[in-house]
Amino acid sequence: ENRYRIVISCPDQPGIVAAVSEFLYKQQANIMESNQYTTDPDGGSFFLRIEFECQQDGDTQQQLEHGFQQIADHFKMDWQLVRVRNLKKLALFVSKELHCLQEILWEYESGHLMADLSVIVSNHEDARELAKSYNIPFYHIPANKDIRQQAERQQLELLEQYNIDTVILARYMQILTPGFLENYKNNIINIHHSFLPAFIGAKPYERAFDRGVKLIGATSHYVTSDLDEGPIIEQDIHRVNHKDKAEDLKRVGRLVERSVLMRAIKWHIDDRVIVFGNKTIVF
Amino acid sequence: ENRYRIVISCPDQPGIVAAVSEFLYKQQANIMESNQYTTDPDGGSFFLRIEFECQQDGDTQQQLEHGFQQIADHFKMDWQLVRVRNLKKLALFVSKELHCLQEILWEYESGHLMADLSVIVSNHEDARELAKSYNIPFYHIPANKDIRQQAERQQLELLEQYNIDTVILARYMQILTPGFLENYKNNIINIHHSFLPAFIGAKPYERAFDRGVKLIGATSHYVTSDLDEGPIIEQDIHRVNHKDKAEDLKRVGRLVERSVLMRAIKWHIDDRVIVFGNKTIVF
Amino acid sequence: ENRYRIVISCPDQPGIVAAVSEFLYKQQANIMESNQYTTDPDGGSFFLRIEFECQQDGDTQQQLEHGFQQIADHFKMDWQLVRVRNLKKLALFVSKELHCLQEILWEYESGHLMADLSVIVSNHEDARELAKSYNIPFYHIPANKDIRQQAERQQLELLEQYNIDTVILARYMQILTPGFLENYKNNIINIHHSFLPAFIGAKPYERAFDRGVKLIGATSHYVTSDLDEGPIIEQDIHRVNHKDKAEDLKRVGRLVERSVLMRAIKWHIDDRVIVFGNKTIVF
Amino acid sequence: ENRYRIVISCPDQPGIVAAVSEFLYKQQANIMESNQYTTDPDGGSFFLRIEFECQQDGDTQQQLEHGFQQIADHFKMDWQLVRVRNLKKLALFVSKELHCLQEILWEYESGHLMADLSVIVSNHEDARELAKSYNIPFYHIPANKDIRQQAERQQLELLEQYNIDTVILARYMQILTPGFLENYKNNIINIHHSFLPAFIGAKPYERAFDRGVKLIGATSHYVTSDLDEGPIIEQDIHRVNHKDKAEDLKRVGRLVERSVLMRAIKWHIDDRVIVFGNKTIVF
Repeated sequence: ENRYRIVISCPDQPGIVAAVSEFLYKQQANIMESNQYTTDPDGGSFFLRIEFECQQDGDTQQQLEHGFQQIADHFKMDWQLVRVRNLKKLALFVSKELHCLQEILWEYESGHLMADLSVIVSNHEDARELAKSYNIPFYHIPANKDIRQQAERQQLELLEQYNIDTVILARYMQILTPGFLENYKNNIINIHHSFLPAFIGAKPYERAFDRGVKLIGATSHYVTSDLDEGPIIEQDIHRVNHKDKAEDLKRVGRLVERSVLMRAIKWHIDDRVIVFGNKTIVF
Repeated sequence: ENRYRIVISCPDQPGIVAAVSEFLYKQQANIMESNQYTTDPDGGSFFLRIEFECQQDGDTQQQLEHGFQQIADHFKMDWQLVRVRNLKKLALFVSKELHCLQEILWEYESGHLMADLSVIVSNHEDARELAKSYNIPFYHIPANKDIRQQAERQQLELLEQYNIDTVILARYMQILTPGFLENYKNNIINIHHSFLPAFIGAKPYERAFDRGVKLIGATSHYVTSDLDEGPIIEQDIHRVNHKDKAEDLKRVGRLVERSVLMRAIKWHIDDRVIVFGNKTIVF
Repeated sequence: ENRYRIVISCPDQPGIVAAVSEFLYKQQANIMESNQYTTDPDGGSFFLRIEFECQQDGDTQQQLEHGFQQIADHFKMDWQLVRVRNLKKLALFVSKELHCLQEILWEYESGHLMADLSVIVSNHEDARELAKSYNIPFYHIPANKDIRQQAERQQLELLEQYNIDTVILARYMQILTPGFLENYKNNIINIHHSFLPAFIGAKPYERAFDRGVKLIGATSHYVTSDLDEGPIIEQDIHRVNHKDKAEDLKRVGRLVERSVLMRAIKWHIDDRVIVFGNKTIVF
Repeated sequence: ENRYRIVISCPDQPGIVAAVSEFLYKQQANIMESNQYTTDPDGGSFFLRIEFECQQDGDTQQQLEHGFQQIADHFKMDWQLVRVRNLKKLALFVSKELHCLQEILWEYESGHLMADLSVIVSNHEDARELAKSYNIPFYHIPANKDIRQQAERQQLELLEQYNIDTVILARYMQILTPGFLENYKNNIINIHHSFLPAFIGAKPYERAFDRGVKLIGATSHYVTSDLDEGPIIEQDIHRVNHKDKAEDLKRVGRLVERSVLMRAIKWHIDDRVIVFGNKTIVF
């Protein structure tokens, strides 16, 4: 169909919505959903996401982009125009814990994940069979501290080969270097198995158990070079009690991880998430 | 300050956002937050809420309204332009259970409820002292099945006298007649002490206890002539267990009622709630 | 290992805990976890669940049961002694929606469901492949209003053949007759896709959408001959908003159904759920 | 009435429940609710809370305590026998933010807080009027880093004078010294306005805002000499979004703080909380 989304960030000033919506009107677009937010009336930042239908024939997207460039330049916009039917291509990076991968595959199979699952990459063999059963290419690229550079070179080649838009770290337990990250800025989504900023780093469930918390959480965020410090997309928690051992926290936490990562991915592929400094606007 | 909100419902068609935003731009308005939603691209309904600042001198609101009328007529809009600093005038109707009233008064006193609490009306005397301690006029108007008409006449006179915009039924346990309701269409907010549509009508906590539910809820909705069937604004729940008697459900439920009603009131006075058929859009 | 559970319901009177715990002590049992609840100090009902270890050799369970009978008779107990390593045998009944089945299989495979998944029964073919991939016997028994008796006869034969303890209706959309139910009293668990008692019966998501609720829920309960009226084991909800169509409620609801049914099953197989009238005690 | 609670911690070994329950039976006690938990079957710790009624005449509590001492000695128990009608005496410490105090006073007035609110202490004058309106003695004791010792001396004298059992820090923003704490070990409850261990220390809402979290939380814990590191009693969270400024987080957070502290207080005065190392068992 002819559905599009335009997502805009720029310095706030009067007239932006008017200019954008007049442009869309002249393209005979019909706006389906629009969300706008300004951080501060005085010198703040302006964010806009519009989903619209445009019934024109021919190469509409290029026309739209071309026509819009003038407005974008005028208002100094960071912007993106996306055709909804051009699904984002995702690469899933996993390690040995497969519950997040499985949730993603499941939603994908049931038709509720509007993206291409193009490739699964792992530093272990555990996910191979699962990938195969869903007919998704699987690549085993060993990775650890000592061979990080080589591994990332292979990974980047794969991502290029598959024309990947977004990398999902679905419990991929390796650190990525800044060199890798800069290729996919604001397009690498991680799930951390704690309520950030609590329990940054390794073994969060064990540390949550040791601290005696009454709720355990999970956080999905864009990856930056600061470990577990990137812009948070979504968080959620589940209640635990004194009877729960570290092993129980892990088990309960898996459910939270699955649903938090899933929501983050869906918002991302729906272009609902805009990164602003170290935070996200989620429309 | 010079902050305004415009809230619009109309049949969907292309060009609405363009027309509205161009109008605002010409008024030198700066849009702070904008939310738009369309139920269906084909022949659906269109909803828009824009919050903006307009630095003009003089009688800006009247100018804005006058200027906007032409656009409104063209698109067959239900619309409302509100100046933020003109606070809505609320009447609180209560009975013997005062926890919701108290929560409202408390938020009011702490400066987090941007409305005028103009008058408190009750069919009992219980709230008099509380009203007095907050310096809010209190009227005792006895009400029950037999004297409903007379009571409502007195109430309506009071509402007129105080120039009331919105009536909050903060656990007011009397039914209001259609004759009363039509004067404040979509401006009477009730809190029902159950997760509607479960336990419509009387004694919901007792019935929730008898049914052995594991969660109890509360629902805030606009009042219509169908008991507990009006458009839902907000709902929430709290977990209970087998140790909780009906009395405990009431106690826990009071907390849920307080926060649910409070959120509904705040969204209403922020003009974030649009009624559409028997549902609400909450921006 | 030598871990056991004893679960007791009886009329309350002084001395029950003393008698039971003295008995266990004489058997050299070590109590791991004990929960007791009395509905009412005056003439109420008494409920007790004790998990303990007993290091004796030989046929301990029979000895324990034999020894305990005298105490049980004295206090008029309904009671059950369960050896933890003797896993309950489950039959899963499904129809065309497989998300609950899939969640169960998944937890089973990851070792977090301490039960035997003995057989999967369906009135459709959809689950066959999934069952096969987990090596669980699958039986297609057509069922509808007209052939209910014949279908239930076949089902009961299967349940007997596989020595089934508990039937899980994991979105099995057929009604079971009282004749069937009486064979597995308090051992048939259903998941209903609404927050009971709201939206009893068919198409709860569509009705929730029509009502404009702000939260959707799911309820797991023991099945009785009153449709969706049996003792509730667990409920949960998820927030929705005006943008969600009926289809979205279904999608979000699937997540709630999965986790609610899963918790109910786990509590049941851990013998944590005691039915009392039309309610449950969950220890 | 004649309701009691006994709360026990000791090294696990067989026979403890038997000994305790036999003792209670001989006293003609009727057990209302009993909860037991063992951390580890091999050399773990044993926790028991029993609520019971004992219809004997005369000085029952002393008799019970005297009789029980032998059992307690045998099993090396930390134990406490509490008569329910002997309400705990609470001192409320507050500063300038009064929402937690107000919630406590409110629950107290509505009869849902089974404790004596004996005295309110503050380093500011803000709460004086509120205290007065509830007829609770109020003491203004200035406190800051420089006069801490003197302030604590005055405070301790007051606590002794009022025979205080438990100190509630209802947003009391001063640090207490180890010398003060040791007088009320496991009997000083604090509310911290974050989801611990995230945002330990000052200005948690501002820091939560800066980090861009999607949920804000509150934590109630027993106070130890490690700031915000004491045993957690209860935690809860509320969802926020990109529109919420630090000020909004504070406002929403106040609701969470109020309910979390309230639950912690109620469990504490019901003797449901047992401290074990740096964690709590909550029965």
